[in-house]
Amino acid sequence: MENFIYYTPTEVLFGKDRENEIANEIIKFGYKKVLLHYGQNSVIKSGLLTRIKNILDTSGIKYVELGGVLPNPRLSLVNKGIRFCKENDVNFILAVGGGSVIDSAKAIGYGVTNDGDVRDFYDFKRKPKACLPIGCILTIAATGSEMSNSSVITNDKNNTKRGCNSNYCRLKFAILDPKLTMTLTQFETSCGCCDILMHTMERYFVNGETMEITDAIAEGLMRTVIKNSKTLVKTPLNYEARAEIMWCGSLSHNDLTGLGVSKTDWSTHKLEHELSAKYDVTHGAGLTALWSSWAKYVYKDCLPRFVKFAKNVFGIESNGGDEEVALKGIAAVIDFFKIMNMPVNLHELGLNLTNRDLIELAKNCSVSCNGSIGSAKTLNETDMLEIYKNANK
Amino acid sequence: MENFIYYTPTEVLFGKDRENEIANEIIKFGYKKVLLHYGQNSVIKSGLLTRIKNILDTSGIKYVELGGVLPNPRLSLVNKGIRFCKENDVNFILAVGGGSVIDSAKAIGYGVTNDGDVRDFYDFKRKPKACLPIGCILTIAATGSEMSNSSVITNDKNNTKRGCNSNYCRLKFAILDPKLTMTLTQFETSCGCCDILMHTMERYFVNGETMEITDAIAEGLMRTVIKNSKTLVKTPLNYEARAEIMWCGSLSHNDLTGLGVSKTDWSTHKLEHELSAKYDVTHGAGLTALWSSWAKYVYKDCLPRFVKFAKNVFGIESNGGDEEVALKGIAAVIDFFKIMNMPVNLHELGLNLTNRDLIELAKNCSVSCNGSIGSAKTLNETDMLEIYKNANK
Repeated sequence: MENFIYYTPTEVLFGKDRENEIANEIIKFGYKKVLLHYGQNSVIKSGLLTRIKNILDTSGIKYVELGGVLPNPRLSLVNKGIRFCKENDVNFILAVGGGSVIDSAKAIGYGVTNDGDVRDFYDFKRKPKACLPIGCILTIAATGSEMSNSSVITNDKNNTKRGCNSNYCRLKFAILDPKLTMTLTQFETSCGCCDILMHTMERYFVNGETMEITDAIAEGLMRTVIKNSKTLVKTPLNYEARAEIMWCGSLSHNDLTGLGVSKTDWSTHKLEHELSAKYDVTHGAGLTALWSSWAKYVYKDCLPRFVKFAKNVFGIESNGGDEEVALKGIAAVIDFFKIMNMPVNLHELGLNLTNRDLIELAKNCSVSCNGSIGSAKTLNETDMLEIYKNANK
Repeated sequence: MENFIYYTPTEVLFGKDRENEIANEIIKFGYKKVLLHYGQNSVIKSGLLTRIKNILDTSGIKYVELGGVLPNPRLSLVNKGIRFCKENDVNFILAVGGGSVIDSAKAIGYGVTNDGDVRDFYDFKRKPKACLPIGCILTIAATGSEMSNSSVITNDKNNTKRGCNSNYCRLKFAILDPKLTMTLTQFETSCGCCDILMHTMERYFVNGETMEITDAIAEGLMRTVIKNSKTLVKTPLNYEARAEIMWCGSLSHNDLTGLGVSKTDWSTHKLEHELSAKYDVTHGAGLTALWSSWAKYVYKDCLPRFVKFAKNVFGIESNGGDEEVALKGIAAVIDFFKIMNMPVNLHELGLNLTNRDLIELAKNCSVSCNGSIGSAKTLNETDMLEIYKNANK
């Protein structure tokens, strides 16, 4: 196995009504003024935003507000937020929402505490050296941004979607109340479940060194996500299932499920980022629309892991050879996506792309990855195009 | 499932030769003077202490030394360390050793930063409100103290062994190099492996609420520990197996394997603390000597968990009833302890106790636990005595 660093300093407050403890958490970390950062509709409609404001008001915590974060959060709002925080002497950000709001908060936090253009960090020109302290109240289990070191921002001037990773942006605290996810639509819930599953799959399908305890945790997490995601299709208000998914969401992206692995994969995510940057599709749906094309294209180069996955995650037993077992595992994932009512190709995602569109996607993906991606199989621009094409059949 | 807080801020640097990075880690956290805290023989004989001193000297890091920590670390040395740190203006502790050294460092850290007698925190009279920053270089995988909020100190004046839990003592960093555990004896290694297994078992055998993802992680961890512990009996220098055990050691006691559980058990640990406080036995060996008596005494009150354990950890399949499956699971653990050459009763532990001795142990245990312990089955003093007696047959 490979050497690794594990660093997850975020304090997680998990369970029913934990958002009521928000004032103490903010006060604990010291603040002058808080930026209350959120999205568009759901936190307003659900009444959550009003409840949080009431708690802040009652506790005498000063704050200013910036709403309007969109899915695939935009650089333009980030820049607005940076100016707004500086003008208002903000020194703590409270993100109320999902991964988009948290990622937007991270980018604002970078911009306030580092000189120069925040865009540089997402264009890989410089690395941030600080971030404002951030806490969150999570309203969708999906991206895992609440415990991760990453944020992904879309530059709305040139339609590029890029990530920046650093430990400075790791949240001080994350409030995870599964009840808050009950107002989500079925599609939103399913997108989140599939994104969570993918965060571990991207770490699992690798060539090179691995670690037994990491595999055991990853397989256990994937089984738990699959089982409870299906429960939520039938009974969306099942608190226990929402809680399992929510905690899996954080664990799936806080590094735990990839420790000791020499090189994780992330091809499906990179291929998807180009889709959502260009066509603004929902990230989780973009992932499921691409995954099977990726899997069928690469599995022969990563056969032992696909076999292990099929057996240990789906319990597939077969008298056939490894290839048969691997393909049954891939088919089981596709069946799962279908049960979740998720798209399994680009047409089902609602896109009608020409060959020229696909060529452009592959080219953009290749540029953003310096020419190649992947661990299960190293993919160059030609491979990327093949995967996009197969997803478009 | 129950609400929970998960907070593991310790930065873990895991893998070969990571101790060479010690200077940067200490400098990162700021220091005036470091207390280099260690045990008796092994870190000196292995040459590790000399290597660390060379690194500190070369980096210009000022330090003072306090060695001599014994297994079941003593309050007398803790008090000496507190005075020594104050005299020398120490503001960072580097623990080089195992759980005893780390626990001793935590107690010293409390004593330096809080007024009054540090003993109060271990007699449950007061709670600490601060701790010196601590880092460690771990030399045995066992107690999990490197990522836990707990420390256990033996008062050598009255032979009581008591724990103190608080987030203040959580380490700033933990350097985990599996190679450093290769100089351990087989007995030391086996004691560590069994302690690690027990840290998850104490969280697993419970009545009340549980969580699927927690169970999946716990079961995966127990399978991994059992498999790799057996590997180390045959091939003690197997790096991969030592690495699996070492990382499992940290995960087993950083709360991850008990999240969402309403009330964890800890009976075997509490019963053992009385043994090691009075007779100075090795903690891991004390645990294996008591566990089967505990398990056979309580399993009927916690049957679903014992059945789940037997099936998911040992793969036991049976056409018999739940009780048969549960007993097969218990037998499998006993077999495992035997393969590890660990004692499975008090005689094999080297003790010859009279009925009066057992009565005293049960009484002390009951006092230290305010009358009762346990989740699998709530045990009072009479129950504790029965378990000690069964272990003494």
